[in-house]
Amino acid sequence: MPMNALYAQSGGVTPVINASAAGVIAAARMHPNHIGRVYVAKNGILGVLHEELIDTSVLTNTDLAQLKATPGGAFGSCRHKIKTEAELARILAVFKAWDIGYFFYNGGGDSADTCLKVSELAEAAGYPLLAIHVPKTIDNDLPHTDNSPGFGSVAKYVATSVREAGLDVRSMAASSTKVFILEVMGRHTGWIAAASGLAARSEGEPPHLILLPEVAVDEGRLLAAVENTVMRYGYCVIVAAEGVKDTHGTFLSEAGGKDAFGHVQLGGLAPYLAGLIKTHCGFKCHWSVADYLQRAARHTASATDLAQAIAVGEAAVKLAVAGQGGMMVTIERLGEVPYTWDIGAVPLGVVANCEKPLPAEFIAADGFGITAAARRYFAPLIAGEAPPPYIDGLPDYGTWVWSIEAPCLPIFKP
Amino acid sequence: MPMNALYAQSGGVTPVINASAAGVIAAARMHPNHIGRVYVAKNGILGVLHEELIDTSVLTNTDLAQLKATPGGAFGSCRHKIKTEAELARILAVFKAWDIGYFFYNGGGDSADTCLKVSELAEAAGYPLLAIHVPKTIDNDLPHTDNSPGFGSVAKYVATSVREAGLDVRSMAASSTKVFILEVMGRHTGWIAAASGLAARSEGEPPHLILLPEVAVDEGRLLAAVENTVMRYGYCVIVAAEGVKDTHGTFLSEAGGKDAFGHVQLGGLAPYLAGLIKTHCGFKCHWSVADYLQRAARHTASATDLAQAIAVGEAAVKLAVAGQGGMMVTIERLGEVPYTWDIGAVPLGVVANCEKPLPAEFIAADGFGITAAARRYFAPLIAGEAPPPYIDGLPDYGTWVWSIEAPCLPIFKP
Repeated sequence: MPMNALYAQSGGVTPVINASAAGVIAAARMHPNHIGRVYVAKNGILGVLHEELIDTSVLTNTDLAQLKATPGGAFGSCRHKIKTEAELARILAVFKAWDIGYFFYNGGGDSADTCLKVSELAEAAGYPLLAIHVPKTIDNDLPHTDNSPGFGSVAKYVATSVREAGLDVRSMAASSTKVFILEVMGRHTGWIAAASGLAARSEGEPPHLILLPEVAVDEGRLLAAVENTVMRYGYCVIVAAEGVKDTHGTFLSEAGGKDAFGHVQLGGLAPYLAGLIKTHCGFKCHWSVADYLQRAARHTASATDLAQAIAVGEAAVKLAVAGQGGMMVTIERLGEVPYTWDIGAVPLGVVANCEKPLPAEFIAADGFGITAAARRYFAPLIAGEAPPPYIDGLPDYGTWVWSIEAPCLPIFKP
Repeated sequence: MPMNALYAQSGGVTPVINASAAGVIAAARMHPNHIGRVYVAKNGILGVLHEELIDTSVLTNTDLAQLKATPGGAFGSCRHKIKTEAELARILAVFKAWDIGYFFYNGGGDSADTCLKVSELAEAAGYPLLAIHVPKTIDNDLPHTDNSPGFGSVAKYVATSVREAGLDVRSMAASSTKVFILEVMGRHTGWIAAASGLAARSEGEPPHLILLPEVAVDEGRLLAAVENTVMRYGYCVIVAAEGVKDTHGTFLSEAGGKDAFGHVQLGGLAPYLAGLIKTHCGFKCHWSVADYLQRAARHTASATDLAQAIAVGEAAVKLAVAGQGGMMVTIERLGEVPYTWDIGAVPLGVVANCEKPLPAEFIAADGFGITAAARRYFAPLIAGEAPPPYIDGLPDYGTWVWSIEAPCLPIFKP
């Protein structure tokens, strides 16, 4: 009897993480001699700890197609870092109880660490487990892969939004708003913010200034750049990564003042910058914080990103069937014009808890823009449209109510 | 010799205002016996005051097609309320100098007032001018028209974004963010916020709470509703209109505390609500301010909205050719299932400086949701997709550099 597989989603979700799930499930069904049932843990690793498992054999091909077209984490995800030996032991106990021989964990750098720990524990215990990490992060900060599924779609959303909002500001700047600030995600790296630079096709087009965590923000230099941009082009569009820091290493978002309750404003970077620029330059400012809108925007997903999200799921199954555990699937760039890519793999040990910053050669000399090399890297990742089906004027996303398998083990008390 | 026409864009721009411009220009070309050249004032009425006119005969049919697919105000718009007799007299002087017999003004309620004043002044001066207002506002607050071009696309964007972000929050709520707040535009009315209610197809789907300017926010009731929603569904998605007020009539955005410079935070409604909910309920909150992203999102325009934006432009020309000045074009709803509509017109005097609030029968009894009547009203306005062409993964929007006609008159000094 072949052993069963378990798939789980971990960390912040993306517009295409469910496409990876569909890739895993569909590919596993092609190998009935190797893989028995495919279970999914509800809410990521929490579903393993609490033994809340979903049997995916209920999913039809129509469900799998709809998964590919639905953003968010259809099975639930979580932010939970495994801290204790008891938790690790519990995971192994649940795997044993459900005869899990394959563990497909779909996440970013933190999750790769969990995947590695589970893999090592199983090996130490002599339990036959192939743990394979399926990469996913909008932040694009996973090392040893050319890019991470989820990023291309968010990059496409942000570049599209900047191009659109830029046209708005441009048309009103003569008598109204002169500065527009878009705050984007990316944690400690500037991949997303940098990719917004694709919106500009020629000199003077937005975004005019990109603020990256990789370049400390000197407020004097920034204000001078804003004034210079407004003088030159009549308006200034700024994209700011949430993780930007000042020259003392302090997050600018933490400088954003306190709210009515005296709490430091979280994610208050854009309003902080607007206040700074209004005060020192006198320009009317508008600002936007895209937050989850960027991370869930399946309606403007990149076709390249979608294809890669599916491919990494399928490749994880191929690795498993080939007996290669303790690995993360990677995306390899083979050529740039035309863009070609393939799937690879690296040992989990070199991936876990690593962050890949934006390379210095992607950042323009003044620190406020991107280079031609960056454009060459980003361009293919946002290529192609992959709209979801629409019903009644809105994307027809799936929402599933899962039935949870009856547990085998006693309740886990951490 | 037929007299010339002048078209201008006014106030906040929309995803489809350029489609109205294309409608006016294309329709005017069909009536060479009535209408000579079609000029456009750069940056709205400011372009009239400063005699900065663009001759649209340079526009090819390809340009007109691209105008229909490009957000923002391609000719520039402005926020400028005519205040003095000298300004009005200047407008008339420019019209005389350029032999303008037709004035097509594309704006909202404030602009309708300008259009009316210009029309009345011309009449009093015995100058033959047909002034026709082409409606446009994302706020949907123009009276005497079923809806306003621009609104349907913004409604579609907001409902799409709420459905997407809702899936994101839902998938993470077990261990992370439980409350998500999206701040949307709409000035003093709740049309945009209310339309987001279309995202929910069944009980319990986001948005769970809609905060409308038409319903004073009692913070205690709001906090109880948030707690109740999280208890029931595990998470809570809130859409808040920028113009919501508390029970004392104060804008909640002004209660949002001060920024680092001691200034009241503009548009700080979403972070204010997040702080309030975090403090009183203890839930992790995320928030987004869509700002110009919603107003410029041509990539997700409503096909209905686009068709109506073109139609009101064309209809303005038909009114002009029929000799009917001092009017605003309107959209009339003829039937709901199937949705059918036609074009009408009302005298400008009944439109200018009026705001149409969300009707009471569109607001659910608890003040936090929309009724079936509201859904019937909103549903057809977001129907149909009308994506722009894409190049290199991004919408291929037009950007024009206009050549300005040499002025005839001395420089205007207000």
